[in-house]
Amino acid sequence: MTLKHPYLLFLGDAVDQLAAKTANGVARWRPGWCVGQLRLEDCHADVGLTDMDLKQGWEAGARTLVVGVANRGGVISDIWMQTLTDALDLGYDIASGLHTRLNQTPHLRQKAAALGRQLFDVRYPEQSLAVGDGKRRAGRRLLTVGTDVSSGKMFTALAIEAEMKTRGMAADFRATGQTGIFIAGSGIAVDAVVADFISGAAEWLSPENDPDHWDLIEGQGSLSHASYAGVTLGLIHGSQPDRMVLCHEPGRSHMRGLPGYPLPSLKESLKMNEAAGSLTNPECRVCGLSLNTSRASDSEAERLLKSAEDEVGLPAVDAYRQGASRLVDAL
Amino acid sequence: MTLKHPYLLFLGDAVDQLAAKTANGVARWRPGWCVGQLRLEDCHADVGLTDMDLKQGWEAGARTLVVGVANRGGVISDIWMQTLTDALDLGYDIASGLHTRLNQTPHLRQKAAALGRQLFDVRYPEQSLAVGDGKRRAGRRLLTVGTDVSSGKMFTALAIEAEMKTRGMAADFRATGQTGIFIAGSGIAVDAVVADFISGAAEWLSPENDPDHWDLIEGQGSLSHASYAGVTLGLIHGSQPDRMVLCHEPGRSHMRGLPGYPLPSLKESLKMNEAAGSLTNPECRVCGLSLNTSRASDSEAERLLKSAEDEVGLPAVDAYRQGASRLVDAL
Repeated sequence: MTLKHPYLLFLGDAVDQLAAKTANGVARWRPGWCVGQLRLEDCHADVGLTDMDLKQGWEAGARTLVVGVANRGGVISDIWMQTLTDALDLGYDIASGLHTRLNQTPHLRQKAAALGRQLFDVRYPEQSLAVGDGKRRAGRRLLTVGTDVSSGKMFTALAIEAEMKTRGMAADFRATGQTGIFIAGSGIAVDAVVADFISGAAEWLSPENDPDHWDLIEGQGSLSHASYAGVTLGLIHGSQPDRMVLCHEPGRSHMRGLPGYPLPSLKESLKMNEAAGSLTNPECRVCGLSLNTSRASDSEAERLLKSAEDEVGLPAVDAYRQGASRLVDAL
Repeated sequence: MTLKHPYLLFLGDAVDQLAAKTANGVARWRPGWCVGQLRLEDCHADVGLTDMDLKQGWEAGARTLVVGVANRGGVISDIWMQTLTDALDLGYDIASGLHTRLNQTPHLRQKAAALGRQLFDVRYPEQSLAVGDGKRRAGRRLLTVGTDVSSGKMFTALAIEAEMKTRGMAADFRATGQTGIFIAGSGIAVDAVVADFISGAAEWLSPENDPDHWDLIEGQGSLSHASYAGVTLGLIHGSQPDRMVLCHEPGRSHMRGLPGYPLPSLKESLKMNEAAGSLTNPECRVCGLSLNTSRASDSEAERLLKSAEDEVGLPAVDAYRQGASRLVDAL
């Protein structure tokens, strides 16, 4: 599954900016792949691209219409259907990360089949996977992990990729979630694979490579999260990471979605992740911290970063404010 | 998904005794549910039940034909088809743990639908699952874990259930694999659920119960196995076990299927499992060991058990040779 780019980002009738966060991520990290945004009436989001209709997008080179908007329930809205249908007619493939599948929407499936277009439901892995075999492979790999879910793992992996590319290093971001897949143009939503194949999916995703090539693998979940830790552990084992970056949002009162579950300390989380990583890569270690300090003032952020560095003795950055330069230095 | 019993066990044209190990397990642990065995010509297995044809089985009370035989590839053999078809005609439901689904075999699906029979593909979970919520629930739970896969986790959980029932304790075996599901009459193959729902499946499987009731949950995989540890961790978190029994087969040169990966020591494995369990149940601890000493002589087995007890300071039994009495004492 590889998405054709450039993309036209479909924002539909997004109720607010947050509803278009997928489009936002793609526009931020792959501006060169995005020719514009397509907004319907009543769209309350704007990701800063040129507004285009389907025809203008096509003429600007777009070949995939990316559904970059989510609504309650993750369904394909009736209001979008005319646009999606017209897109297929014009020549576009369509890619979506919604719960409801394009491929299970009879009208779209039939039309796409008749016209020879592709419908990509990136939430649902299509690859035929094998069970992980744990065999060591060449190439270097870095995996982002977190004290909790939604702690900046995708953002951090992308910031590291960007920094490495700036430095002329060989590097590829490897996507394990929906937004990441749009950004990478390929990948596997590892939380959606059959449980037996989690580590196998991670092996497939970051295959053998040149000895100086870095895969920057997007982490999922957290070893400390009672709902998702199984996904995280399989991803760690299959990724065989040489290095990890531990992502953290200071100030959370409990694990996301789990009242009563406190966050682990940075030190505990670091130790737990290194222990898990050492099974398939004895050299695995955490080389730095990535803090999401978006709710803090500049001076407060500085204090939080300093405090985290003192606690674990590793460089800590806010990748959003500062980029990932010090993390790449720490490799 | 609850299977109707009694069962008639279908051994087909099993090439050897091992090919009928599912039937063997069911016959051993649920003799009262098995009216007999049905063997075709060229069957080289025998699980010690009365040989019956479909009609005799039906008259003896059987209501589900359990496919207790596996062949290469896990397909539904053409040679079995007449028997399966006749079984539906006579009134049986059919249950199978094969890779190929009864429900995707058009002839069987159509016939079952027309006659109102059920086809159970126990390898494929059908329950609509939720993400695990980590909420503490009443009732007591014991989970079997292992230094490696295939180390006696199902057998041990069943031996503990049998011992508890003998003592008049309230106890239920909870099945997480195919043979276990036939034995329990229900359950979920947790390695086959979507990865996001592993812990949710374990929560569903061992729901709130009376304070003195024990769920004996069949473990899967091993935290030390690079292919399957994600499944194991999610199962541990969702089970919220108060107690674990650590299963081990002495003498293995490496983790099953993973040459180059040594087994953890008993102490390491114990510590790792207790640490994982403590996330959702701070009282979680390993209370005993279950060793598979089937390759050892009586005196050698005794030495192995003594040595394991000395190493970790907990009772060690071979549940096959001795039953689980000392494990239940250790609760």
